[in-house]
Amino acid sequence: MKYAFGADIGGTTVKLGLFDGEGNLLDKWEIPTRTEEKGKNIIPDVAASILGKMQERALSKEDILGVGVGAPGAVDDDGAMIGGAVNLGWEPFHMRKTFEAELGGIPVTPANDANVAAYGEMWKGGGRGNDDVVAVTLGTGVGGGIITKGKLLTGSTGAGGEIGHIHIEDKEEEVCGCGHKGCLEQYASATGIVRLARRRLAEDDAPSCLRGAELSAKAVFDAVKAGDKVANEIAERFGYYLGKGLAVVAAVVNPEVFVIGGGVSKAGDVLLPYIEPSFKKYAFPPSAGAKFALAELGNDAGIYGAAGMVLNQGLQNAQ
Amino acid sequence: MKYAFGADIGGTTVKLGLFDGEGNLLDKWEIPTRTEEKGKNIIPDVAASILGKMQERALSKEDILGVGVGAPGAVDDDGAMIGGAVNLGWEPFHMRKTFEAELGGIPVTPANDANVAAYGEMWKGGGRGNDDVVAVTLGTGVGGGIITKGKLLTGSTGAGGEIGHIHIEDKEEEVCGCGHKGCLEQYASATGIVRLARRRLAEDDAPSCLRGAELSAKAVFDAVKAGDKVANEIAERFGYYLGKGLAVVAAVVNPEVFVIGGGVSKAGDVLLPYIEPSFKKYAFPPSAGAKFALAELGNDAGIYGAAGMVLNQGLQNAQ
Repeated sequence: MKYAFGADIGGTTVKLGLFDGEGNLLDKWEIPTRTEEKGKNIIPDVAASILGKMQERALSKEDILGVGVGAPGAVDDDGAMIGGAVNLGWEPFHMRKTFEAELGGIPVTPANDANVAAYGEMWKGGGRGNDDVVAVTLGTGVGGGIITKGKLLTGSTGAGGEIGHIHIEDKEEEVCGCGHKGCLEQYASATGIVRLARRRLAEDDAPSCLRGAELSAKAVFDAVKAGDKVANEIAERFGYYLGKGLAVVAAVVNPEVFVIGGGVSKAGDVLLPYIEPSFKKYAFPPSAGAKFALAELGNDAGIYGAAGMVLNQGLQNAQ
Repeated sequence: MKYAFGADIGGTTVKLGLFDGEGNLLDKWEIPTRTEEKGKNIIPDVAASILGKMQERALSKEDILGVGVGAPGAVDDDGAMIGGAVNLGWEPFHMRKTFEAELGGIPVTPANDANVAAYGEMWKGGGRGNDDVVAVTLGTGVGGGIITKGKLLTGSTGAGGEIGHIHIEDKEEEVCGCGHKGCLEQYASATGIVRLARRRLAEDDAPSCLRGAELSAKAVFDAVKAGDKVANEIAERFGYYLGKGLAVVAAVVNPEVFVIGGGVSKAGDVLLPYIEPSFKKYAFPPSAGAKFALAELGNDAGIYGAAGMVLNQGLQNAQ
C-alpha cells in the first residue's frame, strides 16, 4: 500500500492530511504558519511534520508516492513560486526543489491553493464523478479553479482560472483590487454582495430587516431565507452577475459542473436558484447544460486536492 | 519511419495531407465532399483516398501511426459526432469507429475542425514554440480553439473554445445566430465588422471612401490602410470588442499567445494594434502579458493540426 500527503499552506495554519492509495483520509492535523523572517521556517516546519508523521506510523520513504501542496500564489510548471506569496512573506523561490530537499527526496507536487482546492472538490467533493469541473470560490474575493479531463488548467503563468477578474459591468465606477473596473469579484464576492446591498438600500426607503443591521453576505442570505423582499432583490443582482460571468466561463471551457464554494456558499441551497436563470440566459446553448453544485469539503478541500494531484497525477504537465 | 495523415473535412472539399514522423508535409491534395444522401459517401471517399495514397507510396498499415481528422461539428471524447454535422448532411454517428473500419483498423483521431486548426497553428503556425495557445478564427463567425500544455481543450460536450459566444455588450438589440444578444461574434466576425461599419456610417455624414461602396471586412481594413478616418473608427470599435473579449478568455485560461486567423486576419499586421490596447485595458494583470500573432498556415492549418494530434497525442483524453 502506498500513501500520499496533502498540505494546504494558509496564512495562519498549515493543514495536513495523510491519505492511502485509494484516497481515504487516514489522519488530519494542523501546524501554525510561521510567517516571520520572510516565512523561511514554513517549508522546514511542514517537512518536519510530515517526516514526524511517517515515523509515528512507521512509514518509509518508499511507502510515500509523494506530497501535494497548495500555496497562496502562482506556481509554474516546474513547481517554482514565481511571484512568491505575499501572505506568507515569501519571495520567489523554487518550492518543489526546496521542499523535496527538506523531505530527503520524496517527490513534491506544488500548485496554487485555489486550484488545489478545486481539484479536491472535483475528486471527492461537490464535483465528484465529473472530470470537467469549474470550482468557484466566493470568499473575500472570487477565485476559481478549472479542471479539464481530470487535470488542472494552470495556464502559462499559473494564472488560469482567475474568473473573479472577468469584466462583467461597463458602468462600474469603483475600482477593483486588480486596478480595473467592473470585475465579477466586485459583485459576487462576500464584499461584493455587501456593496450590492448598500447600493440597493440607498435607492429607496423600502422596509428591510437589513436596514441598520451590520451588512454581510450572511446577513443578506439570512434575510432572503426570512422572506425579506429587499434582500431578495440583492440576491437577484448577485445571481445576475455571477450567472452571466459563469456563462462566459462555460463558453470558454465547457464544464460539466460548476461547484460553488467559499464563505458565501455557506448560505446553502438558497444560492443556486439565483445563479441558474442568469446563467441560462447568457450561456451559449451547447454549453448551457452545465450543472451547479455546492462545495462539500469545506476547509479540507485543499488537503484532499493536494493528495489527489499526487495520487492521480492531476496536473496537466505531470504526465 | 512512421507516417500520419491529416484530413480536414469541409462543406465543399476535403483537404488531405501526408506527414512524416517529424511533422514534415510530404504530400497534399483535395477531394470533393459529396454531401448528398446525408453525406454517406464522405468517410468512404476519404478512406479510399488515403488507402490509394498508401498504395501509391508503397506504405503498409504498419507504417501509419494514425489518421487525424477535423470535421465541422462537436466530437466527444470517444470520437463520436454527437450532434452530426449540418454542413455535411451528417446525422450523429460514431466517426472514429466508422472511419477506422473503412481504413481496416488504422487508428483515427477525430476532433472539431476549429480545434484541429488551432492545434495546427500551435504546432507549426503562428503559435509555434508555445504550448498555451488560444487560436481565434475571425470568419463569417468567430471561432476558437484552446490548447493548454500542448493539448486541445475540448470541454465536456465538445463545445470548449466557443469564444464567439462570450457575452460582451449589454446594449445590443439584434439577435446573434445563437439566439442571444451581445455576443463577441456580433462585432468581431467579418459580418460583425460590416454591422459596425453600417452603424458608424449612419451616425453622421463624415466623408469616407466606404460610403456607397460594398461593405466588407476587407473593404474596411483597406480603407484603414488608405488613411480613411471613419474606417479607423470602425476598426477601433472592432478592436475594442475583440480585445475586451480576449481579456476575459485570458482571465480564464491564461494563454501565452493569441493566434488570430480566419478571413479577417488577411488584413495582416494592421489588425493587432487595434486589439492590443483594449486587451491591456481589460486583462487581469497576471494574464495581461499574452502576446498576439497572426495565423500562418491559412487553409493548411486543418491538415497540420489533424496530423499533429496523431503525432503528438494532442487531445486531452488521448494519453
